[in-house]
Amino acid sequence: MDETLQAVRDSMIDGLGQLTDFFGFSPVMGHLYGALLMSPEPLSLDELEEIVGKSKASVSMNMRALERWGMVREAWVKGDRRKFYEAEDDLWKVLISVIESRERREVGVAVGVLEENARSLEGAKDHLDQDEKELAEYYLERVRDMREFFVFAQIILEILLKQKDMPDLGTLKLMQAMQKPANRLED
Amino acid sequence: MDETLQAVRDSMIDGLGQLTDFFGFSPVMGHLYGALLMSPEPLSLDELEEIVGKSKASVSMNMRALERWGMVREAWVKGDRRKFYEAEDDLWKVLISVIESRERREVGVAVGVLEENARSLEGAKDHLDQDEKELAEYYLERVRDMREFFVFAQIILEILLKQKDMPDLGTLKLMQAMQKPANRLED
Repeated sequence: MDETLQAVRDSMIDGLGQLTDFFGFSPVMGHLYGALLMSPEPLSLDELEEIVGKSKASVSMNMRALERWGMVREAWVKGDRRKFYEAEDDLWKVLISVIESRERREVGVAVGVLEENARSLEGAKDHLDQDEKELAEYYLERVRDMREFFVFAQIILEILLKQKDMPDLGTLKLMQAMQKPANRLED
Repeated sequence: MDETLQAVRDSMIDGLGQLTDFFGFSPVMGHLYGALLMSPEPLSLDELEEIVGKSKASVSMNMRALERWGMVREAWVKGDRRKFYEAEDDLWKVLISVIESRERREVGVAVGVLEENARSLEGAKDHLDQDEKELAEYYLERVRDMREFFVFAQIILEILLKQKDMPDLGTLKLMQAMQKPANRLED
């Protein structure tokens, strides 16, 4: 393969490993996804093993995870009975799938725990002495701030989930330009 | 300390450990930040060591990281010469500080690498044979898609960075309600 093509492919595979790592997935998942994304043809497990340089067990495990997250799918290759895979190349779909299956649930759990904490502080107030009451009030403030923060995240995620396609960059840049600079002036 | 207060404090400390872990920081950072956030008074390093159950070395190292990220600051306690700390309790400020010092730079680096990749593919075209040219075109598409994705992230980060305070939840909910449901109907 031409040197430039090779270098670009390696750079994409490497970058995707860093990206999945950042999102709390294994970097091997990113390497496998990158190998498939950068291949015009579906790849077999043997080919994937060779590209990412990992054991059959590690490749199988990470491919199952990628399938669960909707990042890759099985592909059929005429005249070959081995399993082949191809990447979901719509990056927005991949993001939405991860938000839908993981981020949304985790943020929901956090909001639930915080609301439970607020309720138990409210409920405990009656049997607390004066010092403890003040501490309970202080705790309530912290818990409510944190809840507001997660509700903010929840709304942002729901806004993203409603977009079937990536928002048009032109629209976003317009939104950005329309932002009132007043916030900054107070600094 | 009252049982309910203790349980709420532990739950907040534990949850913040999970949150920092998710964002690629050490969970100990989250525990230390949580211990300070849930304390109405500044805490000394000795007190922090006891609460999070970690060694002096680990506590010092993680406290330095928290200071760098603007999540905690030194506090002065009258008549006590030891070092004390308090948490930045404005969660929006903490988020903005992390975006400003880390996320923004990392997304910028990714966009730079992708643009470099696109340029070298464009530059290589002339000396490639027909098959390689097709592969280069395929690579260019993937690189440009990925670039668009990171530029999207970049714009979102810049929009957030312009907000000195957390966007009002009422406004956000309105935005959410105004989203055209057309996207969903196509599913």
